[in-house]
Amino acid sequence: MALQSLVDLRDLALKVLVASETSPENAEMVASALVRADADNIPSHGVARLPTYADQATSGKTDGFATPEISQVASAVIRVDAKNGFAYPAIALGLARAVDIVTETGVVAVAVGNSSHGGVLGHHVEDMADRGLAALGFVNTPAAISPWGGNRPLYGTDPIAFACPRRDLSPLVIDLSLTKVARGKIKLAADRGEPIAGDVATDADGKLTTDAAQAMAGSLLPIGDAKGAALALMVEILTATMTGSNYGFEASSFFSADGPPPNTGQFFILFNPESLGGEGFAGRIEVLMAAILNQPGTRLPGDRRLENRRKAEKDGVDIPDALLADLKARAGG
Amino acid sequence: MALQSLVDLRDLALKVLVASETSPENAEMVASALVRADADNIPSHGVARLPTYADQATSGKTDGFATPEISQVASAVIRVDAKNGFAYPAIALGLARAVDIVTETGVVAVAVGNSSHGGVLGHHVEDMADRGLAALGFVNTPAAISPWGGNRPLYGTDPIAFACPRRDLSPLVIDLSLTKVARGKIKLAADRGEPIAGDVATDADGKLTTDAAQAMAGSLLPIGDAKGAALALMVEILTATMTGSNYGFEASSFFSADGPPPNTGQFFILFNPESLGGEGFAGRIEVLMAAILNQPGTRLPGDRRLENRRKAEKDGVDIPDALLADLKARAGG
Repeated sequence: MALQSLVDLRDLALKVLVASETSPENAEMVASALVRADADNIPSHGVARLPTYADQATSGKTDGFATPEISQVASAVIRVDAKNGFAYPAIALGLARAVDIVTETGVVAVAVGNSSHGGVLGHHVEDMADRGLAALGFVNTPAAISPWGGNRPLYGTDPIAFACPRRDLSPLVIDLSLTKVARGKIKLAADRGEPIAGDVATDADGKLTTDAAQAMAGSLLPIGDAKGAALALMVEILTATMTGSNYGFEASSFFSADGPPPNTGQFFILFNPESLGGEGFAGRIEVLMAAILNQPGTRLPGDRRLENRRKAEKDGVDIPDALLADLKARAGG
Repeated sequence: MALQSLVDLRDLALKVLVASETSPENAEMVASALVRADADNIPSHGVARLPTYADQATSGKTDGFATPEISQVASAVIRVDAKNGFAYPAIALGLARAVDIVTETGVVAVAVGNSSHGGVLGHHVEDMADRGLAALGFVNTPAAISPWGGNRPLYGTDPIAFACPRRDLSPLVIDLSLTKVARGKIKLAADRGEPIAGDVATDADGKLTTDAAQAMAGSLLPIGDAKGAALALMVEILTATMTGSNYGFEASSFFSADGPPPNTGQFFILFNPESLGGEGFAGRIEVLMAAILNQPGTRLPGDRRLENRRKAEKDGVDIPDALLADLKARAGG
């Protein structure tokens, strides 16, 4: 492990991307997003993704030079065509336009299609809360969850995120996938030949398994059994049907540089608290936060990420030596 | 048990409400909603609620004569003040107005406050899908779920519902609460002195319990542990903060006629598929439905309700004798 400052890491990420068929504008947004994930100690969405991202841009699976195209299809609906480029510039473009109109409309839907890996979903809604808005976010991914009763994955891990502003404090940010256990953890166990818990995944025949390798060839179980599968179905409709993108089972891998673009989708709903909740909004949020924190043993969702972020801003983040060497080689350093 | 036709049952429910300090207009909507729940074989939300509803109207906890007040606070946001009356007329008023404007705006938020028991959440979004719209619905209830790590309930069971239209078919309807097991089932076990599963509820000290009576004094566990608790927190903000209503832990019981009105909230988001998904919407929904049903052992969410409904329309529904006698006495026999 080697400690890297966030500034240095971002600079390195930028160089890797620019050296890999990506425009400087797009590279800046992708690099910032990845380093932000590392700062929050979400390494699965950090610069560990860079080798794949760079290979995908080089192979053309992701168009690193894409310029997302925005259109306002109704007075409160923004559509963004990510043009098979990185998701981050497309999402940022759509959300920025939505911020401009939400004062008038009170609510805005942002549908991002022809997109790819969306990064940390919570960060996108957090950005909106930093601007004084509440926001819901949904994203789909290549298939991981089977329909309830079935045994072949159709739905992605399909995260749901929500954020809202807090008076004089960092926003409340909720961000969760609909699988019991993250696919990254199953993958790690498979690589190490370690078993997994008996109630989190099934093999290719739909039977519960503790064998991580068999789980990787099967399905991840959703939270709440049939309920979580139904929520994943809902997320697929919001993120794929409503954005004109691929369903989880139609999408190519986020992890390989081969094949067609994944063409997944992201869907956001922004709310103006001045229309919803009004003057009482800020005070009422604090009543709820206090009721939670008043109970010993509780913490607010997202609090740990904020703690990690503060530490990383001061001390930097630890990056595995092999990854760092790979990135430096790719940067042409 | 006595078999009742839906028409007779609705007529009986109407009479009970009108005899219990409720206006004929409000009584019609409440009676229809309750019988619709019985038809779908959701008796917990059917005419079994009528004795409580009637007592609440008589005591004034619910204002049976309330006329909900609607206002458009932004071009795509409708607020409804239910005036501490029954939720159904308030929800119907807000959704009807939203239907009028969604063609222009593409998305509309409907915030219903000062409300009470919202009935079957899935029915409200199903009504929107019957009009060609997709819809998300959220509702909070008196407290049932503790914040994760805590031991005192703050959040309601906090259902989430989603519906979207299908070409030439009944809409897809998803409707689920965020508890592992419905509170009604715990209550039934407590009444019968039967044990409950060991992983669905905690006692007043926050310890897992198989004792149904102790569970009723404690908390229900959310689906997905911390994830479900975070979703419930999100639902509380959407339904209470954003509608100016009570949080679960502030709300009085839906089951007693005493105390102040529960003042809970309902929150809906309507989407026009012509703006989101466009011409491809209907075809793409069917691609997903087919992919699900193509797997042996699967069914679509809501299918069982539809089967029950068709049977009930033909054969009527079974109502317990004691309940029927109570309702007839209340109706003025």
